[in-house]
Amino acid sequence: MTDSEPIHDLAHLGHVEMFTPRLDESVHFFVDIMGMTESGRDGASVYLRGWDDYEFHTLKLTGRDTAGVGHVAFRTWSRAALARRVAVLEAMGAGLGWVDGDLGHGKAYRARNADGHVFELYYETNRYVAPEGQRPALKNQAQRYPARGCNVRRLDHLNLLVVDPKETRLFLEQGMGMRTTEQIILDNGLEAGNWMTCTNKTYDIAFTRDHTGVPGRFHHVTYAVDSREDILRAADIFLDAGVFIETGPHKHAVQQTFFLYVYEPGGNRVEIANAGARLMLAPDWKPIVWTETERKKGQAWGLQTVPSFHTHGTPPVDGH
Amino acid sequence: MTDSEPIHDLAHLGHVEMFTPRLDESVHFFVDIMGMTESGRDGASVYLRGWDDYEFHTLKLTGRDTAGVGHVAFRTWSRAALARRVAVLEAMGAGLGWVDGDLGHGKAYRARNADGHVFELYYETNRYVAPEGQRPALKNQAQRYPARGCNVRRLDHLNLLVVDPKETRLFLEQGMGMRTTEQIILDNGLEAGNWMTCTNKTYDIAFTRDHTGVPGRFHHVTYAVDSREDILRAADIFLDAGVFIETGPHKHAVQQTFFLYVYEPGGNRVEIANAGARLMLAPDWKPIVWTETERKKGQAWGLQTVPSFHTHGTPPVDGH
Amino acid sequence: MTDSEPIHDLAHLGHVEMFTPRLDESVHFFVDIMGMTESGRDGASVYLRGWDDYEFHTLKLTGRDTAGVGHVAFRTWSRAALARRVAVLEAMGAGLGWVDGDLGHGKAYRARNADGHVFELYYETNRYVAPEGQRPALKNQAQRYPARGCNVRRLDHLNLLVVDPKETRLFLEQGMGMRTTEQIILDNGLEAGNWMTCTNKTYDIAFTRDHTGVPGRFHHVTYAVDSREDILRAADIFLDAGVFIETGPHKHAVQQTFFLYVYEPGGNRVEIANAGARLMLAPDWKPIVWTETERKKGQAWGLQTVPSFHTHGTPPVDGH
Amino acid sequence: MTDSEPIHDLAHLGHVEMFTPRLDESVHFFVDIMGMTESGRDGASVYLRGWDDYEFHTLKLTGRDTAGVGHVAFRTWSRAALARRVAVLEAMGAGLGWVDGDLGHGKAYRARNADGHVFELYYETNRYVAPEGQRPALKNQAQRYPARGCNVRRLDHLNLLVVDPKETRLFLEQGMGMRTTEQIILDNGLEAGNWMTCTNKTYDIAFTRDHTGVPGRFHHVTYAVDSREDILRAADIFLDAGVFIETGPHKHAVQQTFFLYVYEPGGNRVEIANAGARLMLAPDWKPIVWTETERKKGQAWGLQTVPSFHTHGTPPVDGH
Repeated sequence: MTDSEPIHDLAHLGHVEMFTPRLDESVHFFVDIMGMTESGRDGASVYLRGWDDYEFHTLKLTGRDTAGVGHVAFRTWSRAALARRVAVLEAMGAGLGWVDGDLGHGKAYRARNADGHVFELYYETNRYVAPEGQRPALKNQAQRYPARGCNVRRLDHLNLLVVDPKETRLFLEQGMGMRTTEQIILDNGLEAGNWMTCTNKTYDIAFTRDHTGVPGRFHHVTYAVDSREDILRAADIFLDAGVFIETGPHKHAVQQTFFLYVYEPGGNRVEIANAGARLMLAPDWKPIVWTETERKKGQAWGLQTVPSFHTHGTPPVDGH
Repeated sequence: MTDSEPIHDLAHLGHVEMFTPRLDESVHFFVDIMGMTESGRDGASVYLRGWDDYEFHTLKLTGRDTAGVGHVAFRTWSRAALARRVAVLEAMGAGLGWVDGDLGHGKAYRARNADGHVFELYYETNRYVAPEGQRPALKNQAQRYPARGCNVRRLDHLNLLVVDPKETRLFLEQGMGMRTTEQIILDNGLEAGNWMTCTNKTYDIAFTRDHTGVPGRFHHVTYAVDSREDILRAADIFLDAGVFIETGPHKHAVQQTFFLYVYEPGGNRVEIANAGARLMLAPDWKPIVWTETERKKGQAWGLQTVPSFHTHGTPPVDGH
Repeated sequence: MTDSEPIHDLAHLGHVEMFTPRLDESVHFFVDIMGMTESGRDGASVYLRGWDDYEFHTLKLTGRDTAGVGHVAFRTWSRAALARRVAVLEAMGAGLGWVDGDLGHGKAYRARNADGHVFELYYETNRYVAPEGQRPALKNQAQRYPARGCNVRRLDHLNLLVVDPKETRLFLEQGMGMRTTEQIILDNGLEAGNWMTCTNKTYDIAFTRDHTGVPGRFHHVTYAVDSREDILRAADIFLDAGVFIETGPHKHAVQQTFFLYVYEPGGNRVEIANAGARLMLAPDWKPIVWTETERKKGQAWGLQTVPSFHTHGTPPVDGH
Repeated sequence: MTDSEPIHDLAHLGHVEMFTPRLDESVHFFVDIMGMTESGRDGASVYLRGWDDYEFHTLKLTGRDTAGVGHVAFRTWSRAALARRVAVLEAMGAGLGWVDGDLGHGKAYRARNADGHVFELYYETNRYVAPEGQRPALKNQAQRYPARGCNVRRLDHLNLLVVDPKETRLFLEQGMGMRTTEQIILDNGLEAGNWMTCTNKTYDIAFTRDHTGVPGRFHHVTYAVDSREDILRAADIFLDAGVFIETGPHKHAVQQTFFLYVYEPGGNRVEIANAGARLMLAPDWKPIVWTETERKKGQAWGLQTVPSFHTHGTPPVDGH
């Protein structure tokens, strides 16, 4: 294997654990407004998924006194791939050791970046089996279409706030074998944000510099729907339901994502975005680098970025 | 590497060479009606691409006395991956040797299935560089949106007619390292069709049994657009332009593709389908098997498959 | 007023009363699958509406031993307009006299065509007042978006089977002041179908010749959604819910309606169609006449009309 | 006829004449980017229409040293209706007399509001006859779908800046017989804006207070497309073409229009909006009144109105 040989150990983003101080209200939000399905409960945690998610869960909501992110999990391509990653992460000194897994999957290996965000790798998983009443008419689909709320299809990506975006990028490139597809690099040469993938999606995780300097915060989790029309409709549904819309629908210049950001009752930011027309097929994609000047143009069609997008994270810091 | 370790040598479908007895009319169809861009010409061949295709071309139209498929090319993840595949294909006795490449890419290795369909593997490619007037406003896009005709986005997949679907499946699994995602298996145990992928798309190539028994025929090539609405609009455009619509728009049960099939002036079938909301993320996906009984239900919403879909291929055989 | 002065007495289609032998199942269908709202109940009748319908109801479901249509109601532009129509209908000998109205509106005048289909005209109406929990965020909307099932927006039109389409056309033109926008005229000169409007919609009512010769039958009622994408999604929802899809989604050549036809549990045909992009603004529109030859081409994009579309009506006749 | 009897003399908005100091560039914008068709030329004027506009033209572009609006024309329901309006307008003292018409229609009667905006009423019109190459496949459509640029469908409405919105409202209600559907009324009781209709569309014309105090200015003209997806796509096309996007796509709270505003090369504001799902069917609609407090919430999903939207008009005043 040469230096240029790409690594194929991570198969996809598996799930995100999010903390919420209002568990019941958060569950109501994700089930009744987002249109997700509850798969099970375990202690202070509720397991949720979109109708096209093939695993037991893609979101684990855990009651906690403050909002934020618990852990971020990727499924590997195989047991051997998992072993390869564990060896690398241990050698890097980033490893935290094995955990038993939970309702959704088997044993998992944990590692962390300098911020202390916890990442989990696993291969053994529990596939979702649709109960009576949720079985789809077409056998190549995990669950029937819910026809409820925003009908989110599947987990798409997550976004973290980090103290040093370059450090997290190197952790994910070297430790996880992920590829960087787009970046924001400041005029002083510092990295302000990175978008990275382990699939043909153009990104599975993103992270930007946290101006508060507080490590380990969470920016948002994103669920995908089928069309931009679905996102416009979601905005109507959020409006009627009294959910705070932070910004959107509009199109990001970076990654061209058609976005809509809201806050769930626990305070975490949640995005609905369009699924998948834009794919990253090139094996030798060179990261797109956005400059400060370019970012000042705002979003794709000229919308200025709302200030809270640069400050609000969970847990909140001094009101942000 | 164990048996269960997936192979990651092919990065994506690169291009399809299609023969046409009416080259000028076919070029007009793909440029003015489909909304593609001509990248160059070379002898009897014209090179074309969709606005989101990052390479020099994804369709090579070659003037020939009869319609059909020239060759099907996949790009590999790396030079090393290309070398690994060549070794395997040679060992299988399927290799045809190296060719110099053409306007679109560097040297390529050719192999064939039992039907004699020619497959090409390459790594060195020519990236598309948008000329003045075609440069997009957003730097993470290959070319500006054409705003012309059907505005097809990118090559999605192709479909072949084969004498023995199982043989081609094994050729692509063992020779190319592709994975099978859906199948039609007859009551007598014979495979009637297979859908296979080398990406997170649910298929990059498909093939069904050719009832004429004539080997090496072509069923269709598919370009993707962003939304189902784009496909409905394409139907209006084809109708006004006098292009023969064979069937659709409707939704396949197999792979849930929202489809629209037409014949280009050379006689080859062309599909416009929706891009990408449905992805294949599971590393251990078990192929979905459709039975004869299930297929008799027709397409997803009950449309009966038109008879020509099972018979028309290129080159035509006895009027099919 | 000259001959060419258009009549403006009918404001819009108000509601349709439909009979069903399975009232509970029909109500479940319209509320949970179609996404309508129940406004009230009265004897054997349940009153329903779409989220954008401004009146108390647009569909009255009445339990009866057989399916079919009860009455068809139009709201007039004013009390004076109602009086003008009553005078004309009485003079024509088509009048049936006044009724008291029901939960949804005030006193109404009834008249009938030769088939005996009952038409009702009224002006006094009960506007829908959204209860707590159904109040929309935007005050220019009748009710919040339900985010449930197919989310049909509003009553669009209805379609009747008649023994003599010319007779019903003249009844609606002369008795009601409606305008004819499209027609099918057979090679023998007989009218086979008419589409008529009293608004800027291209039709509010349509009717075609009933080949069974049985008078007074019902073909379908249509609810509108915002986009063609909504109709494609409705097809998925019907498929999962086990609702019989008769034909579509596809586009009619006549009126260019994007259609989807299903049977509700009582046996009546129900259509979901797209709302309103195509308007009839010309005050002097000449009816479009379709010939037998033109109709043999099938629907807009070539789909052949399914045979049941020409035979199935309610009440059923000899299995149709 | 009682006081409450609605007036039905105007059939629809017919066309808008817009002045531009860059005629060639403006024509290029409307034809190649908006996707309209040129019907003819006449002196310094070019006549344009959308593919679903049934008349010869709906936009008359006239070369002039400064941008702005020439005249606004409505077609009447009949010759008698035209005569009725002329009598009323003359009695009001608002009449300017008859003009001969132009390439698009027959003789027309002109009247004006206090701002001096010129309104034209006509009945005799020239229907568009599609030339060879523009004839549609479906005979109930004016022209084939252009498949070029934004593909705008039809003229939807226009928006004026006026010194006294109440005066213009009374002029249109009494002089033209139009109905008011929504209003902004300030806390001091003054009218800040009115939306009015003469069809089942929720508005055909709107106007807001001009803070500059300069009379007779123009705010924008709007063309409709079929879906919100078409508007999102238009934003991409404008971005690539270097057209200035002022605001949107987003949804207005007032009238719930999904909007996108750009400036054409002559400086006039142009809107693309979605066509027609929302109709005004109620004959006794009470105008929706928006208060200052309500308007401060911004647009439907929370976007703040850009300052230029309140100041930029044509002709420009002190840079606005």
